[in-house]
Amino acid sequence: MQRMPARPGDSAASIETPALVVDLDPFERNLELMANAVRGSGLALRPHAKSHKCPDIAKQQVAHGAIGICCQKVDEAAAFVEAGIRDVLVTNEIVASSKLARLAGLARTATIGVLADDLSVIGAISAAAAKAGVTIDVLVEIDVGAHRCGVTPGPAAVLLAQAVAASPGLRFRGLHAYHGAAQHLRTPAERRAAIAAAVSLAAETRDLVKAAGIACPTVTGAGTGTWQLERDSRVYTELQPGSYIFMDADYGRNALSPDDHAFEQSLYVAATVMSASVPERAIVDAGLKAFAFDSGPPVVHAAHGLVYVGASDEHGVLRVDPAVAQPVIGERVWLVPGHCDPTVNLYDWIVGVRHDTVECVWPVAARGALG
Amino acid sequence: MQRMPARPGDSAASIETPALVVDLDPFERNLELMANAVRGSGLALRPHAKSHKCPDIAKQQVAHGAIGICCQKVDEAAAFVEAGIRDVLVTNEIVASSKLARLAGLARTATIGVLADDLSVIGAISAAAAKAGVTIDVLVEIDVGAHRCGVTPGPAAVLLAQAVAASPGLRFRGLHAYHGAAQHLRTPAERRAAIAAAVSLAAETRDLVKAAGIACPTVTGAGTGTWQLERDSRVYTELQPGSYIFMDADYGRNALSPDDHAFEQSLYVAATVMSASVPERAIVDAGLKAFAFDSGPPVVHAAHGLVYVGASDEHGVLRVDPAVAQPVIGERVWLVPGHCDPTVNLYDWIVGVRHDTVECVWPVAARGALG
Repeated sequence: MQRMPARPGDSAASIETPALVVDLDPFERNLELMANAVRGSGLALRPHAKSHKCPDIAKQQVAHGAIGICCQKVDEAAAFVEAGIRDVLVTNEIVASSKLARLAGLARTATIGVLADDLSVIGAISAAAAKAGVTIDVLVEIDVGAHRCGVTPGPAAVLLAQAVAASPGLRFRGLHAYHGAAQHLRTPAERRAAIAAAVSLAAETRDLVKAAGIACPTVTGAGTGTWQLERDSRVYTELQPGSYIFMDADYGRNALSPDDHAFEQSLYVAATVMSASVPERAIVDAGLKAFAFDSGPPVVHAAHGLVYVGASDEHGVLRVDPAVAQPVIGERVWLVPGHCDPTVNLYDWIVGVRHDTVECVWPVAARGALG
Repeated sequence: MQRMPARPGDSAASIETPALVVDLDPFERNLELMANAVRGSGLALRPHAKSHKCPDIAKQQVAHGAIGICCQKVDEAAAFVEAGIRDVLVTNEIVASSKLARLAGLARTATIGVLADDLSVIGAISAAAAKAGVTIDVLVEIDVGAHRCGVTPGPAAVLLAQAVAASPGLRFRGLHAYHGAAQHLRTPAERRAAIAAAVSLAAETRDLVKAAGIACPTVTGAGTGTWQLERDSRVYTELQPGSYIFMDADYGRNALSPDDHAFEQSLYVAATVMSASVPERAIVDAGLKAFAFDSGPPVVHAAHGLVYVGASDEHGVLRVDPAVAQPVIGERVWLVPGHCDPTVNLYDWIVGVRHDTVECVWPVAARGALG
């Protein structure tokens, strides 16, 4: 674990850079906006902790009414259970017996769920649960349009639900119907069409499961780009948004409808100008190891005339509009990451800032938890 | 720090995935090829440790004749000095006083160098050195074509060299003339032209520095894509290649001339198929948090008919040629990262494999060292 880049009480200007910074006022407004918008709908809120990997944030989500969290990896789940989170759904297929043994161990102290889209995996989860003497919740993952994991909706899913229901140590909890590819469709109409199709497939599959005599209490999915659609679907029972607490440049490119709740950018990378020896160019200390670039480069925040145009491992190149003042060495620049989740995964600490003061420094406890 | 994904003596098939794996035979051949190709040239080899962030590898490089290492950050330098490396050049501008104080502290037990491209930074390094009672080597960075940090070659660099030479606690060591942008030019002719220009600028600046009465013993630079050109330039005195030990998919796209030494791919991410429920598609457990994507997606190794076509945080989507057998759940796939350096930075451990057995597991001690 790397050194803390700041201490509570420090001025924001003294944070060592590059550092991952959360602006606490908009962060807390995002937390509350989502909690209020789900509360009273009858749906459960289970935020996705893959976005933050941070127990301090998960606890705030639970304090705001979340029933638990989602994560993607067993070792992420372990970090959250260790920190006191008591209901964790691993929204992924886990196939290694060593990982399933660890997952079953977590079920001794927390409610643990996991996905399956194959009979062989159901057998392996059951064996791990039986060996540990625990019950593991299993949801059958159906592919509602993301085209990654998940069995085809319909009868194939019913067969898997029956297998789960018949397996020792397992409790069939329902369907996982997350449409990841819909989250970043740019227009409200595209997102509505994608989620309408997902809702229809999920409803049809849920009804087939019920018709087979198996209770299907949960249909879970949704992300920051589409959660209002799943919330209002009358089919989904649980929502899994993750990025809403932070937002990022890519979500910022989604067009919103007048009905869409708008979350505020709260996540930044603070960087420092380390070279400015040539006109119209300045170099900051945050490059390929300070941001994930899968969704494009970071965007300079609150500084006109600066564009992040290039990166190498530890350098970011800013193009400086000749109409603005040349940045000076030591000057701070705040940058909005292109994609929040894999950017957070590069840092050991999240520095929480309110106004110009560091209020808290949270460990990213599940940073690098790949297992 | 995350759990070790394997232990020495384990079979390669039992490594928990995703894991960063080095195939030790080609890795050692790469180490030796570079060492042999520089030995006898009269040049110094100072490999760039930003590629591996791993003291176990740095020590092997020194054992093969390297005079020390390069890194990019003070906290990287600290990790290597702590591990016993006694000559570290930070090939970057360091401007924060807190970082310069740490850098000066390292100079108590190791030879420490750093770059400067501005008078104000030279003053700050000198103040830190004086306060710690140490001497820090300073190289003036000149921009020989990379267009990131560095002063314009020529008289501006001489002024900085004079300032270094006149500053308490500093020793002017020479010029840093790294042409990063040339490393990935695809054809030998493009790389030759770029380095010829860099050599000319470096020689001219070195001669101006000498004409001003300042010794200029070092001209340092070069990377894995161009190092033979700098080696044979009669101007460069020190070479800084980093990626040669590992290689990656992007370096694999460079065309080589008949004279170019070819390094072998030794770095992989081992992944596991976790879903294969739909024909012509398989999902592996390595996505945006297992690879850096700035230089494109990973490339599937030694498996015909599989192409890595999409990623989300913890999923990689393989397109399966209908002419090949559908992968099965649990099957291993080895993937070549698009860009080695920022991919290595995602892992806490490098698993060294020889034939089918884990021989060593090295900590990536400077992983995430941003400060």
